[in-house]
Amino acid sequence: MKKVVLAFSGGLDTSFCCIYLSRDLGLEVHSVIVNTGGFSDEELKNIEKRAYELGVKSHTTIDETEDYYQDTIKYLIFGNVLKNATYPLSVSAERVSQATAIANYAKKIGAECVAHGSTGAGNDQVRFDMIFQTLIPGVEIITPIRDLQLSREDEIEYLNKHGVEYSAEKAKYSINKGLWGTSVGGAETLTSNQYLPESAWPTPLTSTEPQTITIDFEKGQPVALNGEKIGPVKVIQELQAIAQPYGIGRDIHVGDTIIGIKGRVGFEAAGPIILIKAHHTLEKHTLTKWQLSWKDQLSAFYGNYMHEGQMHDPVMRDMEAFLQSSQETVTGRVIVELHPHRFVIIGVESDHDLMSNKFGSYGEMNKGYTGDDVKGFSKIFGNQTIIWHKVNKKD
Amino acid sequence: MKKVVLAFSGGLDTSFCCIYLSRDLGLEVHSVIVNTGGFSDEELKNIEKRAYELGVKSHTTIDETEDYYQDTIKYLIFGNVLKNATYPLSVSAERVSQATAIANYAKKIGAECVAHGSTGAGNDQVRFDMIFQTLIPGVEIITPIRDLQLSREDEIEYLNKHGVEYSAEKAKYSINKGLWGTSVGGAETLTSNQYLPESAWPTPLTSTEPQTITIDFEKGQPVALNGEKIGPVKVIQELQAIAQPYGIGRDIHVGDTIIGIKGRVGFEAAGPIILIKAHHTLEKHTLTKWQLSWKDQLSAFYGNYMHEGQMHDPVMRDMEAFLQSSQETVTGRVIVELHPHRFVIIGVESDHDLMSNKFGSYGEMNKGYTGDDVKGFSKIFGNQTIIWHKVNKKD
Amino acid sequence: MKKVVLAFSGGLDTSFCCIYLSRDLGLEVHSVIVNTGGFSDEELKNIEKRAYELGVKSHTTIDETEDYYQDTIKYLIFGNVLKNATYPLSVSAERVSQATAIANYAKKIGAECVAHGSTGAGNDQVRFDMIFQTLIPGVEIITPIRDLQLSREDEIEYLNKHGVEYSAEKAKYSINKGLWGTSVGGAETLTSNQYLPESAWPTPLTSTEPQTITIDFEKGQPVALNGEKIGPVKVIQELQAIAQPYGIGRDIHVGDTIIGIKGRVGFEAAGPIILIKAHHTLEKHTLTKWQLSWKDQLSAFYGNYMHEGQMHDPVMRDMEAFLQSSQETVTGRVIVELHPHRFVIIGVESDHDLMSNKFGSYGEMNKGYTGDDVKGFSKIFGNQTIIWHKVNKKD
Amino acid sequence: MKKVVLAFSGGLDTSFCCIYLSRDLGLEVHSVIVNTGGFSDEELKNIEKRAYELGVKSHTTIDETEDYYQDTIKYLIFGNVLKNATYPLSVSAERVSQATAIANYAKKIGAECVAHGSTGAGNDQVRFDMIFQTLIPGVEIITPIRDLQLSREDEIEYLNKHGVEYSAEKAKYSINKGLWGTSVGGAETLTSNQYLPESAWPTPLTSTEPQTITIDFEKGQPVALNGEKIGPVKVIQELQAIAQPYGIGRDIHVGDTIIGIKGRVGFEAAGPIILIKAHHTLEKHTLTKWQLSWKDQLSAFYGNYMHEGQMHDPVMRDMEAFLQSSQETVTGRVIVELHPHRFVIIGVESDHDLMSNKFGSYGEMNKGYTGDDVKGFSKIFGNQTIIWHKVNKKD
Repeated sequence: MKKVVLAFSGGLDTSFCCIYLSRDLGLEVHSVIVNTGGFSDEELKNIEKRAYELGVKSHTTIDETEDYYQDTIKYLIFGNVLKNATYPLSVSAERVSQATAIANYAKKIGAECVAHGSTGAGNDQVRFDMIFQTLIPGVEIITPIRDLQLSREDEIEYLNKHGVEYSAEKAKYSINKGLWGTSVGGAETLTSNQYLPESAWPTPLTSTEPQTITIDFEKGQPVALNGEKIGPVKVIQELQAIAQPYGIGRDIHVGDTIIGIKGRVGFEAAGPIILIKAHHTLEKHTLTKWQLSWKDQLSAFYGNYMHEGQMHDPVMRDMEAFLQSSQETVTGRVIVELHPHRFVIIGVESDHDLMSNKFGSYGEMNKGYTGDDVKGFSKIFGNQTIIWHKVNKKD
Repeated sequence: MKKVVLAFSGGLDTSFCCIYLSRDLGLEVHSVIVNTGGFSDEELKNIEKRAYELGVKSHTTIDETEDYYQDTIKYLIFGNVLKNATYPLSVSAERVSQATAIANYAKKIGAECVAHGSTGAGNDQVRFDMIFQTLIPGVEIITPIRDLQLSREDEIEYLNKHGVEYSAEKAKYSINKGLWGTSVGGAETLTSNQYLPESAWPTPLTSTEPQTITIDFEKGQPVALNGEKIGPVKVIQELQAIAQPYGIGRDIHVGDTIIGIKGRVGFEAAGPIILIKAHHTLEKHTLTKWQLSWKDQLSAFYGNYMHEGQMHDPVMRDMEAFLQSSQETVTGRVIVELHPHRFVIIGVESDHDLMSNKFGSYGEMNKGYTGDDVKGFSKIFGNQTIIWHKVNKKD
Repeated sequence: MKKVVLAFSGGLDTSFCCIYLSRDLGLEVHSVIVNTGGFSDEELKNIEKRAYELGVKSHTTIDETEDYYQDTIKYLIFGNVLKNATYPLSVSAERVSQATAIANYAKKIGAECVAHGSTGAGNDQVRFDMIFQTLIPGVEIITPIRDLQLSREDEIEYLNKHGVEYSAEKAKYSINKGLWGTSVGGAETLTSNQYLPESAWPTPLTSTEPQTITIDFEKGQPVALNGEKIGPVKVIQELQAIAQPYGIGRDIHVGDTIIGIKGRVGFEAAGPIILIKAHHTLEKHTLTKWQLSWKDQLSAFYGNYMHEGQMHDPVMRDMEAFLQSSQETVTGRVIVELHPHRFVIIGVESDHDLMSNKFGSYGEMNKGYTGDDVKGFSKIFGNQTIIWHKVNKKD
Repeated sequence: MKKVVLAFSGGLDTSFCCIYLSRDLGLEVHSVIVNTGGFSDEELKNIEKRAYELGVKSHTTIDETEDYYQDTIKYLIFGNVLKNATYPLSVSAERVSQATAIANYAKKIGAECVAHGSTGAGNDQVRFDMIFQTLIPGVEIITPIRDLQLSREDEIEYLNKHGVEYSAEKAKYSINKGLWGTSVGGAETLTSNQYLPESAWPTPLTSTEPQTITIDFEKGQPVALNGEKIGPVKVIQELQAIAQPYGIGRDIHVGDTIIGIKGRVGFEAAGPIILIKAHHTLEKHTLTKWQLSWKDQLSAFYGNYMHEGQMHDPVMRDMEAFLQSSQETVTGRVIVELHPHRFVIIGVESDHDLMSNKFGSYGEMNKGYTGDDVKGFSKIFGNQTIIWHKVNKKD
């Protein structure tokens, strides 16, 4: 009997796959769920229980949270990556990490097949397909939902027929929770001109009293919250726990899917948004103009290419080397004030602050150079444009 | 007697220049103020009065608001330009426009000299120097404040000595108001870790009731507010009048000055920030992925190079041609909700919306292609990375 | 009977298609050949004769040479496009132009289908598919060669069976001749380590006497050869006729195909290579540093995206607007010396030459600025790096 | 007595400085020459002798060749850096290395001053100024030639007056020889439309018999010539010795100086040009499309910023990290054929060759995917453009 590793979430589609892969295709199903920080222990236990109810041969939970941070989120922070100036790539980043973990697991247990429950309409199918083809090239990829094009009702009927109960009611919004933010899709996000109502946001607004927090960065990584050195993953999780109840970091992202259509998705990501803005502000104080400029260019590509599932192209390693190098002096404290629906970056404190007034404050005369120096500078800095106008003047 | 055109603001530095240029240098002073939308009629009248009190031969007010929009702001909107993801370049954009108008005026009246009151420590001196050298290359540039390095007290004493009264008290913050935002510098902005207090913001928070507004864009230009077609300049001004009392668009920009030091400046720019975010959202619905990507790259450079005073390098015209071309389909309505301290882009309505569900909604099956098409796509799209891993695999 | 427009070249694959489309699929075949400057009148006549022998309902020759120059080659010159610093995109550019002309023809005659003879292994299938889907979205695309996967022998047998004679002998090299160069594939180009032998080049080396020629550009377009104003298309053709017998512009291009594999192809393109190098040299004299720099970035993308068949993405129009704007001052004469296997750009003469020694020659003292100006410039230009080292110095 | 370190070349300008610094300024002169591979032992000995004749307190020769390769040239090879698609930056690269070595030497001996003999008209003054200000910020920079603006005749007269003989005759061309190429300036290069005559090239054409050589790269570094593993510096030197007598790599570079004027300079650099083209070809076989594309973008900036003397901006370290990472698989042999005035890259052999026909040759059917896969790919790859045309079609 051939082994198949199934990326399992416990939802309708992958529940259907469990039965279909064993009953119809005669495969030995090994379900696996990759936790990238979005699931509680209890949720994971329920998913495991569910898998065994569906008759899988084995079920495995892989905790990828730390690797996910090290291999992916760290660079999204280094790069201040907000797709289209808005979205921290909550889901995209996660999928790459999950697919990679599943591929490695399939290799480990010697599976001949790997299955995922993606439909034929979204980004995830491309990410899963490509990463599986890259990392486990001989392994057959099975995608029942995409291939059979069943309706929700068809799937439920099929499950019922095989003795599995499944409620027909459907949540109004599809929600995906992870370490780097929670996405919310459905209803209004399928239009171009409507916004999500208050009730759609997974985390209700419960914190209204402003508070000031501090985040300490060491070489670009967030290592401490309010002075407590708890390490990056914990900083992300605790900051999210503190800030999301303020309703911070909610927005709708409009973007290009890998398959060429436009998509719109709501998200709440207080932690990621605050971290990125705090990190970026620290960089504005500690990096040179061209470091900031090139980081922007590379990061825009890096984020987008990750979004498109191309994380295993070696160019991504080259970009990570650049980003890593750029963080050498990004060490210091950022002070942030939280308010309902918004936050304010108060300022930074860093030994690497290039704004140190030892070297002259903006608008005050500087000891390092004179007005005459600037006169000379202006002449030379504008020299080519001056010459161009002399050569090309019309009159 | 040689003529000098003096860029005059009515402040201490340029008041000093008036006297100094005529008394000490023996020049015939023609003061000029360029209004780029930041001055009221009354303020302009007071400045004119002041100029004549200081003994200028002539004083001229040039209204550049419309040209400023056409030559500069329009492209900042097209490019969604926010320097370092924050600052709409309120002051930088204005200076370029003012310097250009002054140069043209000097040419018109045949002045042998042109003077500006910049100190030796900021960006403005470079902008004025370069633009004058470029547009009126034979004309001598005189910069008394930079050259004499006088203290505030010295200048006041000099003025008093020449019979001009000037109060010794100094405003805590230096404020610059224009069509594209108001900057606020001083006290906290000279540190790295303090934020401006409520009292520092020129426009107090007085609007607290949320409201929904609409902005209509035609080929990228904001032409109507709440359905009233009043043209771009009026849209900017009225939107600012409505939105600034909400305290929207306040922030501190940390950036690289032309002269290589870091500077920090507060600003309030509700109108510009809302317009840019609204315009950008409309673009996300109407432009292709690569249009969005390339616009980002070009605009980042365009904004920065304008900031550095290089607006007359012909590469800027080339970039404007790109930006103009990209706006062909950026027509539609954007709906925005205003709240105290924040705003929400509700959505867009556009005949050019590429998210039109005629072509398949994200996450729903699309009639234009099948799951099999995407399977094929994934294989080919990932082909090079797949091959790379086959060729270079370690085991 | 449904109409099909067939892109016809007279070769084995498209000859097979003629018969197959009418006999097996029962379609009314309208063959069309698009001349982009690579065919002589006699060749076109032979192809037409061949088409009618194969029983087509109608055959049409479309001369796209002028449009091909205006819509495509002009921008390749403006952009100095040499893919991977080597290849003028001879074939890629042509295919886009041909596919577009065929789509327009299909629309004109109201064809329900369109067919091309591409195999499933190259770039052309993607270009034809995408351009047809974009420009004539309702029209069915038929690709017999790709679908049936017949061998050469199978096709010949099929043709013979249907009374069409076709010689079984195959040329060692596959050659594609067009206005913008001739490609040569086969044998050595299928390896990584062998070069094409002398005999493989379509144009033998027959000119050995060095000669000097001049090319005049007007706003970036090559308008005259040796002082004779014959217009761009003629300049390209005559320059090619003069220079190719020197063996100039022969090379092997190694590049990424659209489908992710690496390909290698020989080409001879004396005219295109000389024109691009001449044009680039003129630009080095007439454009500013940032114009040159941004042109490089945009053109690299433009060339590659055209290569990938994406010519109808509106971002290409935006880039063309940039390129067009940048050519405003690219007017002047370039002097070139031709030698066997190589050419030398002797120099340029232009009213827009920014090197005009009116403004100081390099290495000679310049009247526009002094050594003190440069001292000041150095201080300010290096200021941020100086500060960075002070802040971050280790000792 | 204050110590001054003088960058000494033995030429007229720096000979003048020797006397002037000690006699007129009363400084203790420590002359230093930095050999970056351009001087023979005999030349260095003569320069030392000359220095002592001019009365210096000490003279030191610093051999920087190996460091120059490691810190600079290595990255120029990794980046295939040819400024404006032509010039290997022979002189620019060298100056940065020399200035850095001199700064370190000044620090070591505790000099209060440092002097260089640059005029006020070229690039070198900016490079020296900036690097000294950055690396030895307290040390005074003295530039007698720039400050005094003496003519050649004045300098000779001054030397004669102080008992130093100096011939009044001047070489027609100014030549600068280094590890990474030799520059040739003067006469024709001061015009825009003349080329250097045969006699101007330092290395006469003496090799006419074609020969085939091989260069082996390991992770991007040239380690062996014709199979002999002699290390990068020796490969560069020996390749130059073999190839320059063919007259390969001669050209004229037209470029933007740091000070905004255009400059033209001849150069011969057979070794560098061949190495870069060979390395680039190996990369085309071993790197992915986006690695090649991003390397081009970063390298263009890297080369230009080095040219402008900004080598100590930390962004350069970040770029080096990217470039280093990208070389992981750039290992293999490149075969090159040398002919008079030109060379041909025959091909490459590499275990990392992505063109390996295990994965399908271009134009041949590939086992990894089918024609149907490509059909699907075309549909999705063109999807957005297809939608754009549907939404925006005019008719």
